[in-house]
Amino acid sequence: MNAPTKTPSAEAVLLREDAGKIAILTLNRPAARNSLSEALLTALSESFAAIAKDRDIRAVVLAANGPVFCAGHDLKELTARRSDNDGGRAYFHHIMTSCSAMMQSIVALPQPVIAAVSGVATAAGCQLVATCDLAVASTQAKFATPGVDIGLFCSTPMVALSRNVTRKQAMHMLLTGEPISAEEAQRLGLVNRVTDHGRERAEALALAERIASKSSHVVKVGKKAFYEQVQMPLAEAYDYAAQVMTENMMARDANEGICAFIEKRAPSWEDK
Amino acid sequence: MNAPTKTPSAEAVLLREDAGKIAILTLNRPAARNSLSEALLTALSESFAAIAKDRDIRAVVLAANGPVFCAGHDLKELTARRSDNDGGRAYFHHIMTSCSAMMQSIVALPQPVIAAVSGVATAAGCQLVATCDLAVASTQAKFATPGVDIGLFCSTPMVALSRNVTRKQAMHMLLTGEPISAEEAQRLGLVNRVTDHGRERAEALALAERIASKSSHVVKVGKKAFYEQVQMPLAEAYDYAAQVMTENMMARDANEGICAFIEKRAPSWEDK
Amino acid sequence: MNAPTKTPSAEAVLLREDAGKIAILTLNRPAARNSLSEALLTALSESFAAIAKDRDIRAVVLAANGPVFCAGHDLKELTARRSDNDGGRAYFHHIMTSCSAMMQSIVALPQPVIAAVSGVATAAGCQLVATCDLAVASTQAKFATPGVDIGLFCSTPMVALSRNVTRKQAMHMLLTGEPISAEEAQRLGLVNRVTDHGRERAEALALAERIASKSSHVVKVGKKAFYEQVQMPLAEAYDYAAQVMTENMMARDANEGICAFIEKRAPSWEDK
Repeated sequence: MNAPTKTPSAEAVLLREDAGKIAILTLNRPAARNSLSEALLTALSESFAAIAKDRDIRAVVLAANGPVFCAGHDLKELTARRSDNDGGRAYFHHIMTSCSAMMQSIVALPQPVIAAVSGVATAAGCQLVATCDLAVASTQAKFATPGVDIGLFCSTPMVALSRNVTRKQAMHMLLTGEPISAEEAQRLGLVNRVTDHGRERAEALALAERIASKSSHVVKVGKKAFYEQVQMPLAEAYDYAAQVMTENMMARDANEGICAFIEKRAPSWEDK
Repeated sequence: MNAPTKTPSAEAVLLREDAGKIAILTLNRPAARNSLSEALLTALSESFAAIAKDRDIRAVVLAANGPVFCAGHDLKELTARRSDNDGGRAYFHHIMTSCSAMMQSIVALPQPVIAAVSGVATAAGCQLVATCDLAVASTQAKFATPGVDIGLFCSTPMVALSRNVTRKQAMHMLLTGEPISAEEAQRLGLVNRVTDHGRERAEALALAERIASKSSHVVKVGKKAFYEQVQMPLAEAYDYAAQVMTENMMARDANEGICAFIEKRAPSWEDK
Repeated sequence: MNAPTKTPSAEAVLLREDAGKIAILTLNRPAARNSLSEALLTALSESFAAIAKDRDIRAVVLAANGPVFCAGHDLKELTARRSDNDGGRAYFHHIMTSCSAMMQSIVALPQPVIAAVSGVATAAGCQLVATCDLAVASTQAKFATPGVDIGLFCSTPMVALSRNVTRKQAMHMLLTGEPISAEEAQRLGLVNRVTDHGRERAEALALAERIASKSSHVVKVGKKAFYEQVQMPLAEAYDYAAQVMTENMMARDANEGICAFIEKRAPSWEDK
């Protein structure tokens, strides 16, 4: 409690802090419930683009400042564009497309992304958690897709949500807008672990560090293959995965890793 | 217990009763375990077709009279057609196709459909529950796909079942024919809520009313988008959903809903 | 405890023992942690090919001798081929393709296959369990996809794993390599039942016998239809399944089964 806490920059809507091989991205619009303004969407996209090329980074933790993890789109910013000549249509499409592209950049990122959710994650905020490869949540976290309550069905969030939880569970969240607890989210598959409140960031970091200790080449190959094969029919998935395995076997780190395993020693990965 | 209960019509195999904005459809062949005779399939299809055009109805509750929710196809009716010139083939195909079309009309219905399951739901009866958008079950409800026990594998039921529960769980039900409890069905994702016996209809109605309080336009848009995107690869799903969101933003109820949210007042939907 | 136990052949890497209508396949390389050497892959493929044509066999139990169910590929055998002219590439591709074909032969087998897992199942061993139609596990069983720890991401195992458990749960296993317990595996959908240690084989046999008491024709039709339809869009799945149901209705065993049900007697299947 007495430890000095990092003072968030007054300007930056997204903070990046690297802890060894881990990049920690922190949503930093607490007063606006970390809603995904155009600036924040751009900052996230740019950060993921930079991390994708950063060979020193092996995993990403996505956290948030303030009591709300992320409340979805910035409704005031969207509403302001209703006075555009086209009633805002072009801008709305731009934002929805940008947001969808940012979400897909998480899926395409070579490094795994782990959400550390301390508070409420709603709408596109819930989508952000669903999109991450892994998620750790505080017992106080809640998840909801309440767009239906404001006349804007959570249609882009449900793309990620319905790929995390079963249909009836997703439909209940989408049609009622009601939140679910962290425990329920874990039961459904939306988060991997639930921790004591205040421990979620440390737990996500510990998980990230475990992943960072693996071969970055192999993690990259595996993450990509996961999302590719999961969309394929079975025979096609096996043809693809058998090819991935063959190439993986030819990689330096498989040779090293398997030899180390047979020789009962720790492996030494290419990109240490 | 002293309240007068509605006497089911001696003729109608399906009852429709409207409670405000909710249509309550009640399977009414209790002596035949509410099996889906051709007449009942036709009545269901016609009711869903009528409700689809009924702008006063915002949600549907699907319930059943008698101790059995629905026992699947009417085996006596099917068996009687074995004496047809073709051994019944054309009739069987007609019934299976009609039943599949009826099930898909629930998915295509603009309004959400909530099953209220008090008793046993087997074969196409279990499929009916799996097909509804949401389901509430009594603690006494049971679910099974026991076709394998009578030489008729639950092949059409499994289309819906396997889109609700995991593969091994579906296979266990399909290969053994054994029933699962309401609690197990909830754990697996086949039903959303389990209630005290006798409370399932009231709970389903309460859920329907919560949904009926939302914008009917938005619920319709959202339900349609859900079942469309869930079948698409990720990039295609996002392109589609971003377009749906953009159009949704341009709708009157999104404008109203978002303004009401920002102004901290209750929204007033177009179709009150 | 005093009963004489079957002594595993010193040579055979895979044992087949028939118990009535059940074929019991037992992985028999306990000293090599039942790893899937080329010889064992071939033996499995040949056994499944033989069983596919064996009309006396109605279900298969897949068990293992020794404390480890199956540790995945035989790393020493693979590593030895690094000295091939092509560094092993052709051999690795041959093994990965053979293994994928063997896994798919389980899916394509007319008879259901039930894993009886007593110990640890890792990598392709975990894949084997995920691929079986059903699985029973001892409380001491564990499941992991630890390829990431040896520089060889479990890319072929994840094809089966990600079709059994949710995305984040699969990603956690794949990225961390950490094992999950039998209870967790049941919760996630990777196994159907957890039994006291030592009871898993008897439980799998009992389950196999229940399935063997059904019409073998109908089980075959149903299993095939399950894996076909689960990959189709909804409308296509219903067209296909309605056709399967129609053909099933025309089969002798549906006639017999439905008549027996109506007449309240036990059915007498064609292939007794």
